[in-house]
Order: sequence, then C-alpha cells, then structure tokens
Amino acid sequence: MVRIGIVGGSGYAGIELMRLLSVHPDAELAAVTSRSEAGRPVTEVLPALRGLVDHSFREPDPGMLGDCDVVFFATPNGTAMGMARELLERGTRLIDIGADFRLRDVAAWERWYGMRHACPELAGEAVYGLPEINRAAIREARIVANPGCYPTAILLGWLPLIEAGVIDTGYLVADAISGTSGAGRGAKVASLFSEVNESFKAYGGTAHRHHPEIRQVLDASAGGPVGLVFVPHLAPMTRGMHASLYGRLSDPGANPQELFERRYRAEPFVDVLPAGSHPETRTVRGNNYCRIAVHRAPDPDSVVVLSVIDNLTKGAAGQAIQNMNIMFGLDETAGLDSPGLVP
Amino acid sequence: MVRIGIVGGSGYAGIELMRLLSVHPDAELAAVTSRSEAGRPVTEVLPALRGLVDHSFREPDPGMLGDCDVVFFATPNGTAMGMARELLERGTRLIDIGADFRLRDVAAWERWYGMRHACPELAGEAVYGLPEINRAAIREARIVANPGCYPTAILLGWLPLIEAGVIDTGYLVADAISGTSGAGRGAKVASLFSEVNESFKAYGGTAHRHHPEIRQVLDASAGGPVGLVFVPHLAPMTRGMHASLYGRLSDPGANPQELFERRYRAEPFVDVLPAGSHPETRTVRGNNYCRIAVHRAPDPDSVVVLSVIDNLTKGAAGQAIQNMNIMFGLDETAGLDSPGLVP
Amino acid sequence: MVRIGIVGGSGYAGIELMRLLSVHPDAELAAVTSRSEAGRPVTEVLPALRGLVDHSFREPDPGMLGDCDVVFFATPNGTAMGMARELLERGTRLIDIGADFRLRDVAAWERWYGMRHACPELAGEAVYGLPEINRAAIREARIVANPGCYPTAILLGWLPLIEAGVIDTGYLVADAISGTSGAGRGAKVASLFSEVNESFKAYGGTAHRHHPEIRQVLDASAGGPVGLVFVPHLAPMTRGMHASLYGRLSDPGANPQELFERRYRAEPFVDVLPAGSHPETRTVRGNNYCRIAVHRAPDPDSVVVLSVIDNLTKGAAGQAIQNMNIMFGLDETAGLDSPGLVP
Amino acid sequence: MVRIGIVGGSGYAGIELMRLLSVHPDAELAAVTSRSEAGRPVTEVLPALRGLVDHSFREPDPGMLGDCDVVFFATPNGTAMGMARELLERGTRLIDIGADFRLRDVAAWERWYGMRHACPELAGEAVYGLPEINRAAIREARIVANPGCYPTAILLGWLPLIEAGVIDTGYLVADAISGTSGAGRGAKVASLFSEVNESFKAYGGTAHRHHPEIRQVLDASAGGPVGLVFVPHLAPMTRGMHASLYGRLSDPGANPQELFERRYRAEPFVDVLPAGSHPETRTVRGNNYCRIAVHRAPDPDSVVVLSVIDNLTKGAAGQAIQNMNIMFGLDETAGLDSPGLVP
Repeated sequence: MVRIGIVGGSGYAGIELMRLLSVHPDAELAAVTSRSEAGRPVTEVLPALRGLVDHSFREPDPGMLGDCDVVFFATPNGTAMGMARELLERGTRLIDIGADFRLRDVAAWERWYGMRHACPELAGEAVYGLPEINRAAIREARIVANPGCYPTAILLGWLPLIEAGVIDTGYLVADAISGTSGAGRGAKVASLFSEVNESFKAYGGTAHRHHPEIRQVLDASAGGPVGLVFVPHLAPMTRGMHASLYGRLSDPGANPQELFERRYRAEPFVDVLPAGSHPETRTVRGNNYCRIAVHRAPDPDSVVVLSVIDNLTKGAAGQAIQNMNIMFGLDETAGLDSPGLVP
Repeated sequence: MVRIGIVGGSGYAGIELMRLLSVHPDAELAAVTSRSEAGRPVTEVLPALRGLVDHSFREPDPGMLGDCDVVFFATPNGTAMGMARELLERGTRLIDIGADFRLRDVAAWERWYGMRHACPELAGEAVYGLPEINRAAIREARIVANPGCYPTAILLGWLPLIEAGVIDTGYLVADAISGTSGAGRGAKVASLFSEVNESFKAYGGTAHRHHPEIRQVLDASAGGPVGLVFVPHLAPMTRGMHASLYGRLSDPGANPQELFERRYRAEPFVDVLPAGSHPETRTVRGNNYCRIAVHRAPDPDSVVVLSVIDNLTKGAAGQAIQNMNIMFGLDETAGLDSPGLVP
Repeated sequence: MVRIGIVGGSGYAGIELMRLLSVHPDAELAAVTSRSEAGRPVTEVLPALRGLVDHSFREPDPGMLGDCDVVFFATPNGTAMGMARELLERGTRLIDIGADFRLRDVAAWERWYGMRHACPELAGEAVYGLPEINRAAIREARIVANPGCYPTAILLGWLPLIEAGVIDTGYLVADAISGTSGAGRGAKVASLFSEVNESFKAYGGTAHRHHPEIRQVLDASAGGPVGLVFVPHLAPMTRGMHASLYGRLSDPGANPQELFERRYRAEPFVDVLPAGSHPETRTVRGNNYCRIAVHRAPDPDSVVVLSVIDNLTKGAAGQAIQNMNIMFGLDETAGLDSPGLVP
Repeated sequence: MVRIGIVGGSGYAGIELMRLLSVHPDAELAAVTSRSEAGRPVTEVLPALRGLVDHSFREPDPGMLGDCDVVFFATPNGTAMGMARELLERGTRLIDIGADFRLRDVAAWERWYGMRHACPELAGEAVYGLPEINRAAIREARIVANPGCYPTAILLGWLPLIEAGVIDTGYLVADAISGTSGAGRGAKVASLFSEVNESFKAYGGTAHRHHPEIRQVLDASAGGPVGLVFVPHLAPMTRGMHASLYGRLSDPGANPQELFERRYRAEPFVDVLPAGSHPETRTVRGNNYCRIAVHRAPDPDSVVVLSVIDNLTKGAAGQAIQNMNIMFGLDETAGLDSPGLVP
C-alpha cells in the first residue's frame, strides 16, 4: 500500500483526491491537511465521504507528512515549493497539483505568478506530469508537476498534429471553457451560484497563466516558438472542460483522424472518437478520460480538434493519481476505472 | 459470475444499471435490449461507456433472456408482467424496476395504472424489494418488485417512527422533490431543459401513483390505515430526491434520533446523520445511500424527517443491484461502494 | 417624480430595485450607496444597467439621503434602524427590505436577531408592508417594514383559510424552497455555484428567522396562537420561491378554491389559478405576481396550498416598489407590469 | 397601433414575441396561431402571460392573418414561404424569423435546407433584417428576413474590422455557443434537461446552416469570398449566445477598440464595452442588446472579438420587433427598453 498525504484537502482538487483514493485498491490515506478546517473530521465538511474516510483535517506539518511515500499538494500556487526540500530529504516524493514546478524557466514563472520561487534548483528537476509525453520520466521522478486543466485538454488535442509536422504552428487558436469548480472553493462573489448560473463569459483575456505552460510544451514539440492564442471561458456547470482547437494544415494530404488514432492507440486515458463525433463533457464526468474528435473544415482547408476532460479528474486529481500509479509501479488505471456519471 | 439481462437499457434506469454493473466484481452483462435503439452499439448511444460495455442493443427476446440468471426490467409499467411467466419457467429470476409487481392488491393496481394485469397470480408472489424491511424474503424471491424512488425515500424516513408507535398516523405529510431524470428519457416538452431549468413546481397533485405503494407499506407497519398526504415536486437538477416528512409525535417522550440510529445501525445503505444535520442530495449523487436526519419542531411539538437518495441509484438501479446481491448471496455492497460525486 | 435613495445597492435586492426603477415611469433614482463598491460607477459593477443608470455608488450619508422622498434599505439587518430617526426628521420616508422593523415585539426581535434594537419606539409605528392586508396603513406610513420572502409566499397562501376560519390552526405545515439569490450576494462557500448546483437541501432546521414574522401575522389573523412548522429549503436555481402549505380543514364543507378567488379578486398581484393547477416559479420570474393554487387531499381530508413568487421581486424589491406606489398615490402597478421571463 | 399576427406562437421565438409585445406601447396582437395548440387559450399553455394576453391559439389562416399590418413567422423553415404571396397581395408585410428568405442564392438555399423554395422570386426582394447594415431598406421592405441568432452575434463582431479592411479575411474563426432554447421547443431527447445539464459540446461540426448566411454578409462586406470556420456549441443554460471571434490583423497599426466604438456609436442596440472587458450573456438576458468587447492578442499579433446576445431576443424575436419598429416608423427601441434580468 502506498502511504499518502494530502496537503490542501478541503479544496476541490483535494476533495477529488479523497473521493478517488477512498476506493483505490493500492493506496491508503495517511494524513490530510487543511489550514481552514484543521481539527474538524473530514466527513463533517464532506458528508459524502461518511463511512469512507476516518481522518480529521490537520495543520500541515512536514514532519508528519515526511512519513508518507508521496504527498499530493492540492494547494494554491506557492505552497508546495515551501515544503519540497524538507520532504525530499525525508525520502517522500511530491505531486504538485498547483503550478509551482510547471515552468522550467524560473524567471518566467516568477513573472507570471508574481512571487519569488522558493527552490529554483528543484524547478529544473521536476517532471511535467503529462503521462502521454513523459511516462518514463514520471516513473523515476521525485517531483511531478501535475499539468493544469487547460494545458491537459489543449496539449492532448494539439500534440499529434504538431509531432507529425502537418499543422501551421504560426497561428494556433485554443478556445476553451471550464466548469466553475475550476475557480476553486474559495469564497468569491464571481463564483456564486447566482452570478454564474444562466450566463457564459470569456475571462482572463489573452493572458491566462496557463498560456506559458501550454507554450512550453508546444514549443518543445514543434522545435521552436509557436503562435498561440488561448482564451478561457466560464460555463454554468460544475465540472467539465471543453477545448475547441483551430488551425490550418500545412500538409493538405494529412489524415488527422488516422494520426490521432495511431498516436493514442496505447494510451489508457485518451479516447479518440470516430470521425464526425462531438465529445460531450458529461461522458467524462468524474472519470479520468480525455475524449477527442477531429474535424476537417472545408473552406478554408483547416482542422478543428474537440477535446474534453473533467477539469477535476484528468485535469487535476485523477491525473495526479495516474502519475502516482506510474511512480509506484502500480497498474496505471488503478482506482480510475469508473465510468463517467451519466446522466 | 451472475449472468445478467437488462430489458429497457436505453432509459435512465437502464443506463444507471449498465454504469454500475460495468464495474461490479461478480456480475457480467449477457444481454441488453432496447426497442428504440435495437441494433446500435451501446456506446454509440452512450459514449460514456466506451471501453466498458461491448454489447449492442437488441430486441427483447425471452428465449435469449432466459439464459440469464436474472433479468432487470428498466421499462415502462406493463412490460415486465408480459414476460414474467416465460422467464420464471426457464429458471430466470426477475427484478422489476417498473411498477408491475409493487401492489399486492391487483384491483388497486389496475385502477391506478389503467391497464389489466397480465399475471395476477404472480403479483402475490413478488417480494417488495426494500431490503431494510424484506431482506430475508428477497433472498429467496423469484420476482422482486423494486420500490419506486419516492417510496424508498419516504418509507425509510417514516418506518422507524411507525414501527416504534410514537407518531400520530392519522395525518402524515410527505413533501418530496425529484430531479428531472425521474421523468425518464422520453422526449416530452415538459422535460426539456428550457422548461425545467430555473423553475420549481409541484406536480401530480395529491394523487401520484406512488401514493398507494407508500400506503401499502405504511399501513402494514402501522397495523391499519394511515392518513397520508404526499405531494411530489420537480427541481431543476438531474439527479437527487429529497423528502421532508412532517408529523406529530403521539409519545412526547420519544427520542427520534435514538430510534433512527438503532433501527438502521446494521444497514449498509442507510446513514443516520448527527442531530441537527440537513442532508444534501449531492452527498448521495451516483451512490446507493439514503441519508436521513431527524428534527424536533418545538411549537407545536412535532417531528420533521429529512431523507435523501439518488433517484436513479437507491431510488432505482442501485437498489435493484442491492437486491440482486442479496438474491445471489453476494456481498450486499458489491459494486455499490463508490462515494457520491462531490462537487 | 418620486425622488429615491437606495442604501445597499450592490446586493441582490438593491440590484433588483435598480432594474425595476430604471423603467419606472414616476420615479427617479437620486442616490445609491454601497460601502463595498463606493466610488465605482454602477454599470462597472452591473453592466446589465449600461445606458440606464448613470450613478456611481456612494458611501451612505444621511444628509444626502435626506433629500430623497423615500429611501429603500436593501441592507443587512441592523442598518436601517441606525439611520431611521434622522431620515424621518428630514421628512424622508423609509422602506426597509431588511428585517429591522418587521416584529412588533422588540424583545422577540432582539432575541431572534441577536442585537439590541436601535429605535424600539419606531418598531411600533412601522407598518408591515404586505399590501394585501395593510394597504390603507401603508398609504400613510412613514416606515414600511417590507415582508421577508418566505412570509410573503406563505402568508398569502394561508390567510384566506385562516380569515375564513375553516382550517385547524393547531398544526400548520409550511414547506418552502428558495432560489439561491435569497442567500444574498455575500461571498460564502455555501453559496458557490459548485456547492449549490445539482443539489437540494433543507436548512435552518425548524428555527428560521422568518418563523416569528409569519407567526405574528397568522396569530393576529387567527385571533390567537397558531401551531406552525416551517422548514426552508434551498433549490439549485437563482430566482424563485415555492411554498407548499399543508393543513386540515376544520370545516369539511369549505370550498377553498372559491375562498381564494373571492379573497384576491381585487388584488393586482395575486393570481389564483384554476382548480387543479400547479404554479411554476418561472411564471413569475422577474415580476411581482404571487400565483396560488389550492388542492383538496382526499385521505385524510385536508388542504394543500401551492404558492409561488420571485423571491427578489414580490419577495423583496418588487413588493417594496408596490409599497412605494401606494405610499405616494401612484398606480399600484406602475413599473411592475412586465411579464415573467419565460423561458 | 400596428396590428400584429404571429404564426407559430407556441415555440420559443413565438413566446418571446408575445412577452415583448404584451408591453409594447404601439402594437396590438390581433391573432396568434399554433397548429399543435390550436383552440387552447394562450395562458393555459403559458401561465406567465395571464392577465396580459387574452387570445387563444388558432389554426393558421391567411384570410384572417391578411387583416394584420404585419405577420411574424416564428415557424420552422419552409412555412413562411408558403403563405408569403397571399399575404403580400393583401397588403400585409412579413417578418420571417425562420430562414426562408435569408439567402439570396435560391439554389444554395435549397441545398442547405433540403427542400424546394416555394417563391424564389420573393427571395430576391426580401431584405436581410440586420438593422445595423440595412436600416434604410428595412424601412421600405415588404418582407424582412430576420437574421439567425449565430449570424447576428458573429456579424456584429466581424463587420467593423472587415469594413475597415484591417483583418486578414482568408481565415476567420467563429467559435460560438448557444443556450438550449436555441434548439427550440420541440420534444427531442437531445434537448432534455438531463441530457443538457452539466454538459458542454460542439455540434453541427463545421457545416451548420448558419454558415452560408454568415458568409453571404461577410463576402459582401469584404468584396469577395472570405475563409470562415464556424463551430457552434451548446451550453447548459436556457438563454444566451456568446461568440468568440479570432483573426489576424492585416494592418498592425489598426486600433480595433476605436473602430468598434465609431462604427456603433449611433446604434441603439450595440454596446461596445471598454477595452479589457469580457461581456457576460446574462447582461443581455431578455433584452435586445448586443454587447461587444475587442482584445488584441500579443503573440502572434491578432485580434479576439467577444460578442454576446440573448438568442431569443436580439437573436430572434427582439430583433424582429426592432425591424417592425423601423418598418412602421416607430421609435426603434419601443417595447425593447427593459434591462437584462440580473441576477
């Protein structure tokens, strides 16, 4: 049994970790922390876990967390980097669902996140936890930087075309929408039911923090800088993320459907739909799949990729557990095999 | 492995059966029928089940269904009774999620459901599948009449008080609300998103078909006719059922909290919340629990019981699988142990 | 033109006041305050009012507000009473959408609201602003205590039966649900979209602050203490309130449908539906109607009243404007004649 | 008073027409038809209109409709063209909210709509009813082809850039989402609450019927064929449409914000938001505005236009009434001046 610690257990990613781990066959929850709820039984805050989780929330404490095999950070940006050195010294591995270790360029990180990085030397060591491109490195990693939700949905949609060199990388458009749980469990007027319900909007303009994270991977794949326009939107739903990706083929003879099917044939959590399909976010509600469909647009000749995930699962806690499974030599799908909740 | 047939697999109860059975450790799906979708792969209609269900929908056929150990009917009222005799003769057991076998009084059934009963002799044999009162009989039953969603939520809320004889049974008020999936997957204007969203209403007046079903059990428990007012309501959500039960204590010294805790101590799927709680339907979203809280109202001295279930799970397919587990000597919670999907 | 001030303009009741007043033919907005948004143009906070409202939010200031003919308080409890004396001295009338002046029993008020009342002498003078019972007194009032949302929906549903003396007032059950805007625009985790969406719950147990307010009116109407059980619920929608009222007729020969029709024949904002109807909250979305249906339940012989309002309109700002229209001799329906927004 | 007939009054566009016309100062409803509801009082189907609309639905009858000054067709495609000649002969003008007269190229129309056009000679006469480009022609028109919802939101977003010649028209991306009321009030499984709620999807691939309609206007504005990729999406909300438009500036010195402000300065129903804004669909809920924001994306240098309307108002019935106001010399905003329903 892998012994697990969760830091930040009362936010949505932390709750999702507990939900998934409570039925994981090879993992056991050793400790869960929450500054705001410290001292309260988990099930008092989250009655849905009654009978499944016996712990109380505690104050974060590196000593106690250092007894775990792995610690998940489901925390605001800036938290994981503060405890990383101490945990590594104790032999504990880290999976950061926050953004502390996602950018290799520490200066860029400090610019986008508006704070000083606490352990720049570790930023270079951390492995970007997208299994579909980094499985081998994840296996050995001491620190996994779990990808953001938007990057997960968007990268899995662009990579087959970029790796195959069939798309014009000078102008890539990523229009993506997120369910409201992506804004977190913090008390903000903008996230109130009566503000979000029955409305739709873009936000973050053209400068969302996931932009450099997406660029970092796309640039590496393209072998040079790509031109990316990324606009995030908020939809009146709790879970779900949908990316619509627009680009022009540089090779008009390319067969995108075939490229996607071949690229993801062996991937346990990427499902390429038949040609002509439109993936619905509900088909991945609560599970770890990314479902993708690819369309040719006739005039002008171009491509549209549609990619859906659950922002809390493949977009956060589910992918983190997938990474843990890889890191500890477990079946990669362990604890992640339930179907989406439909309807 | 229990070999399973599902009749009516493309409605919401049928979909929920497939979702739950796809990860059941001791059951295997042998056949699934749907008149409207016959010939289509299940996953074409329900992409959420891709990778989990390989079957195509077929026309219902007693010959083929007769090779199953048990057949679930997730069909409109009137279907199961038409195939019951033939299946029993072939040694196949039945769990009817519809209403064909719920009322022992066949004349009353014919009045409420507006049709002639096809096998009145079996109506008397069928066991009402509420495990919390009929576990032993379910174990031996050839036909289980799976309770309606409203009856499940309401009966579990009233029974401890009636069995203990501490409530005035002359005037029991059951105010209950259902998510919209309870109206089924049929194409009706009244179930359209734009009709249901951002609205709330009562329906069915004071004469819903679940009224006699609730009365049948309450009367038996009370040892005589009770006075029941039951009003169902529709809430703008997909899943979930909430019952608020109002009554006057006949024994002012009664301790309802204690009565509930004692009554359900050994029940795997009834969770009595601490005094002062308010159960939320989301805590049982997609799982088989009924969560109950009980309140004393001061003036006039009376009691309020709050009871929540997922109408598709404990209110339909989940309870049906619980019954199957009992009938076939499996662990009663097999395949039903996932936590509710929160958020 | 009636010159109007609004205190607390950035909450939901304040926003609703501005929405309605922006098209009122006989009223002009003179000033609107908001501590949290002071200095910002109203339309920066509320782009929906662009082109209709030119004001900026200001700090509340009795001097400036004293130039208004009437000031609406759309504020947390405890605010209006702090400015009441000064405004009355300046000849300005008050309509308090908060609860400061709703209970005549100041000691009870202080117990329920947990604070000392700042002007108990005015609590006796204030008129409870339910036009259907107090129209004449409202006309002359210096202070109108605008009813709470639950009391409005519930009182309009009970009064015809109590006034006619045909109902057993010893045990009245009021089961009511509210849209989430009723919880206000404050940043609270419990009001987040991801907490409220796809869920339903009771709250406030059996001791909500609207309980004594409802009792005060029912007791007066019944000529003695009634027995009331009132349980509020939260539904996953923004606007709307639905009350289901349960009671036993003391006069079995009563004709409730006729009683309701006669009682409300001349009321501009109470609409008694035909027998057998089920009012939907969406039919009053954004407008000032209360729609009511009454049902006889057969066994035991009893009555069910269904009553719907928009909690922000007839339940708050709309009724406040109706009161203003009465106080200033305007057409009672001025500015309140738009149909509900369906779908 | 303009005498009005509505054909197809029980669909969502028809309902929206009645809602808006019930408070229009210069219009009176003479007749409303609905094949499916013929004979029933309007308010039995739509209780929200009780007290405002006295009519009953009738069978469509050109004789009776010919007594109207104008007839609105809120009908499926193919209906208006069948009655157009007869109404014109009687001197009645037509506003078709359906698609019968939107394409000047009748052959293209027949291809996209899969039927023979009943009066091709009138297709050339009809005026495309987007007031922002065709106001003068609308004034004189006998037939107005009311634009589709997607074309309205998208055209108003692209036109200032195309007219100014500052955008590369070879590759224009229009990613748009619609509330579910856009799918109509027909009973379809795909529009059920339990299918739409908590989900998001693209649909129509890259070949939606609004594609040629958008192209027709963009091509005319650009003076030649443009390259358009248009993908519609469905969001879990009732009303609202949001378009995100992506393109590359051909003139890097262009000032899009200024272009938009100048272009729409005199338009009563187009509201250009301050730079940096993100329009929310709820700000136009139930009203006739189009709100637009324009953003520069840095890398690659490009532009993003965000445009919102209510699909039933500016996207259908509201724009139809705006057109009627123009046709009959009324104030263009008559009956259309209510603010959006927020929250």
